[in-house]
Amino acid sequence: MPRTIEVTELALRDGHQSLLATRMALEDLVPACEHIDQAGYWSVECWGGATYDACIRFLNEDPWERLRTFRRLMPNSRLQMLLRGQNLLGYRHYEDTVVDRFVEKSAENGMDVFRVFDALNDERNLRRAMEAVRRTGKHAQGTICYTLSPLHTPQTFVDQAKRLQDLGCDSICIKDMAALLRPAPAYEVVSGIKEALGDDLPVHVHVHATTGVTLVSLQKAIEAGADIVDTAISSMSLGPGHNPTEALVEMLEGTEYTTRLDRDRLRAIKDHFASVRPRYRHFESRFLGVETDIFESQIPGGMISNMENQLDQQGAGDRVRDVLAEVPRVREDAGFPPLVTPSSQIVGTQAVFNVLMGRYKTLTAEFAHLLLGYYGATVGDVDPDLVERAREQLGKEPIEHRPADDLEPEWEELETSAAELEGFDGSDEDVLTFALFPGVAPKFFAERGEGPRNLSLESASADAGGESGDAPGSRAVSSPVTYDVRIGDTVRRVTVEPA
Amino acid sequence: MPRTIEVTELALRDGHQSLLATRMALEDLVPACEHIDQAGYWSVECWGGATYDACIRFLNEDPWERLRTFRRLMPNSRLQMLLRGQNLLGYRHYEDTVVDRFVEKSAENGMDVFRVFDALNDERNLRRAMEAVRRTGKHAQGTICYTLSPLHTPQTFVDQAKRLQDLGCDSICIKDMAALLRPAPAYEVVSGIKEALGDDLPVHVHVHATTGVTLVSLQKAIEAGADIVDTAISSMSLGPGHNPTEALVEMLEGTEYTTRLDRDRLRAIKDHFASVRPRYRHFESRFLGVETDIFESQIPGGMISNMENQLDQQGAGDRVRDVLAEVPRVREDAGFPPLVTPSSQIVGTQAVFNVLMGRYKTLTAEFAHLLLGYYGATVGDVDPDLVERAREQLGKEPIEHRPADDLEPEWEELETSAAELEGFDGSDEDVLTFALFPGVAPKFFAERGEGPRNLSLESASADAGGESGDAPGSRAVSSPVTYDVRIGDTVRRVTVEPA
Repeated sequence: MPRTIEVTELALRDGHQSLLATRMALEDLVPACEHIDQAGYWSVECWGGATYDACIRFLNEDPWERLRTFRRLMPNSRLQMLLRGQNLLGYRHYEDTVVDRFVEKSAENGMDVFRVFDALNDERNLRRAMEAVRRTGKHAQGTICYTLSPLHTPQTFVDQAKRLQDLGCDSICIKDMAALLRPAPAYEVVSGIKEALGDDLPVHVHVHATTGVTLVSLQKAIEAGADIVDTAISSMSLGPGHNPTEALVEMLEGTEYTTRLDRDRLRAIKDHFASVRPRYRHFESRFLGVETDIFESQIPGGMISNMENQLDQQGAGDRVRDVLAEVPRVREDAGFPPLVTPSSQIVGTQAVFNVLMGRYKTLTAEFAHLLLGYYGATVGDVDPDLVERAREQLGKEPIEHRPADDLEPEWEELETSAAELEGFDGSDEDVLTFALFPGVAPKFFAERGEGPRNLSLESASADAGGESGDAPGSRAVSSPVTYDVRIGDTVRRVTVEPA
Repeated sequence: MPRTIEVTELALRDGHQSLLATRMALEDLVPACEHIDQAGYWSVECWGGATYDACIRFLNEDPWERLRTFRRLMPNSRLQMLLRGQNLLGYRHYEDTVVDRFVEKSAENGMDVFRVFDALNDERNLRRAMEAVRRTGKHAQGTICYTLSPLHTPQTFVDQAKRLQDLGCDSICIKDMAALLRPAPAYEVVSGIKEALGDDLPVHVHVHATTGVTLVSLQKAIEAGADIVDTAISSMSLGPGHNPTEALVEMLEGTEYTTRLDRDRLRAIKDHFASVRPRYRHFESRFLGVETDIFESQIPGGMISNMENQLDQQGAGDRVRDVLAEVPRVREDAGFPPLVTPSSQIVGTQAVFNVLMGRYKTLTAEFAHLLLGYYGATVGDVDPDLVERAREQLGKEPIEHRPADDLEPEWEELETSAAELEGFDGSDEDVLTFALFPGVAPKFFAERGEGPRNLSLESASADAGGESGDAPGSRAVSSPVTYDVRIGDTVRRVTVEPA
């Protein structure tokens, strides 16, 4: 009897996030839902920070309504979301009762599996969210952000898995957001976790395809005992996205492993996305091939495009290679954080500043906060001179405790502020939308009644216009010597003297 | 000590053949040669039927001069070619002394490794070419065309490998031209060959990337003892092409296997092709993603585009799925030949005819010859009713002997005919060009003095014009009821009554 490998389909969340800047409208996802529901997946990833953000910022869609629609259309499926621990779906730390409320409402609206991660792999930033998920009776998945550094060994990740088990997680996810997990360490990490934690705690492996090697890593993870793997249907796969679901099925054909997936359903899902994707070509990722240089820079594919845009706008497009070389140095100075939202933006922006203005001539506020521990603890030591610089610049002391411990209860204040907005519907869901995206929520509430916008149906020129400057994580530049940095809703203007 | 896996780089032949319709001009290949020569490859595939054809048909380049250039620019490398056994680089069987002459001249001009295959896996069609290679002292690689059918098991291929060993080959190649070799059979076939033939005969694995699963197959082939694998530099990889060289290197990092490849040289090769490839966008393969439906139809990616073109021109673009479903039936009726040039064109065209006109209402002459044994023997039995139809249609009897046994010596006649052509230079190489491509050689000889054409530097519209109708394997249609079939230089006009 072959062992059954379970599969999570990513097309509805990370698939279009990685390939189409998260722009796919609900109406283009709906026709695939029945097939996805019947195909035999373990879960269907369909919600997260970027989908929530894109819904209210670009698509005039209520993300909670999207969630309820998925719930209704896929009654047999576990719905899955990606949750940034104490950041929830935003870019700052939230006070604990907001975390609780968000998890409760998500579960109530239909979410089943919460994949909870922290960009720094600091479990203190996961604890509250995990406890909240467990109270709802839903599936709490503790997540390890995979990264490479002189301080990260397979044992580092096994130790982290133990700590996640101690937090009471229902499964462990290895999340490889930049396709850095090679086959040999995939085997070592998964078998190490299985040995240390026993066979009862499922191990779930999430890899991107960017470096071209991670389908082999999934094979090795499966040989090492992985229980569930993430893929995206072929017509929404590859490049900075994920390995194709159908290729996984074929990979296991004739081996001692199998999946429960129905090939005819997979073909129907593939055909659907193959037919709608061309309409989103203006949002397509620039580069759909394989890039192994990432093993050095560790910069996820989507972020490289962002940097190229920034540098082009600065008339410094020829400095891309310098920035790619600078990123690993900045990351080392910050104690080797994994590069994933928001640490990827923080480290990447500081690297751009270093190249354009001279190394650490200006610290971004976010980088300074990172150095002082306000995002949590990193595995490595932070450069002491930089800590001193950050202390002076921010007028704040370094902290060693959990960042959210400093936060006062904020739900009532959020509720009061939200209630003042035109179009606020009085629900906790709306309060949460305001809490997560205070800059975008007012316009969204006011215009919600106009109904969803499907950007793929608008003209190419309108699409291109809608793109410029206001994408999450993008940074508009207003003059050659002034530089606007946005992380989430926070925009910071910095005057730049080129080095 | 990790075991060293040797690598063959495909960018100069199958890479641009699979992705860019073999149109890359020598001047765009030359700048990569020094890096390729220094990168640590086992061999450099750089010549074959399609490159020879494209040189004289489209690029006004002497293919022998291309070979001599590669020899000069890569003095440290084994140059490798793909040879269609008794077909040489053409589409018919050649008399034995022509085979001898072609191999001698290729070796003399710098070829080192001859990968010899037959589309039907009929070793009688390889024997003469293999003997000729051995006489030159060069490397004779015996090739197994991998395919799937109820009659093909791993043992089938192991048995064939034994027969190739008996022919005296220096290595065995498993050639998977449609990306059908899944990981489990990759392991079984390679380990079966190693067990049966011993460790001294190197096993070389060639896979395409189309189904998305074959990098895993390379991993399994390596675990089973494969010695050499084929890849293409990342900027000339994927889609209907091959797995990226850099991904192979990363795949083996930290395992008990390694390569001799130099990452800096690989980066230089990648950067070169990344910079020239966009100029060839008008020749780009239509589909660069992953397609697992090939496991059913077994039609190589490039051929599907050809069929779509044919059917579109017939106003029958909506019949593509019918044709894809018909191909496996036609293949079964013909005794399950692998689908590779020329059997892929023969079976594919018959399938188109069956769909448009009714099943076997018309047999193409090529399909009739295939049924009667004039291309060699297939593994399976041929449908007896069809054999009878073919016999009547051609007025020929079925044969069981080696097809080339019927051929009379033809070198002198070829020489005499070639000598009559304007621009013939008196060399054996020119006689061979005439022998292989009698329809194209006269124009090429006459215009050779004008020097090479780099199609990527001409305008988009000119490129598109150059494409229509005269590509090798394409078929022009002149009216809705008339259908021209070209296989190589042979064009056959058939009147079609749509079913």
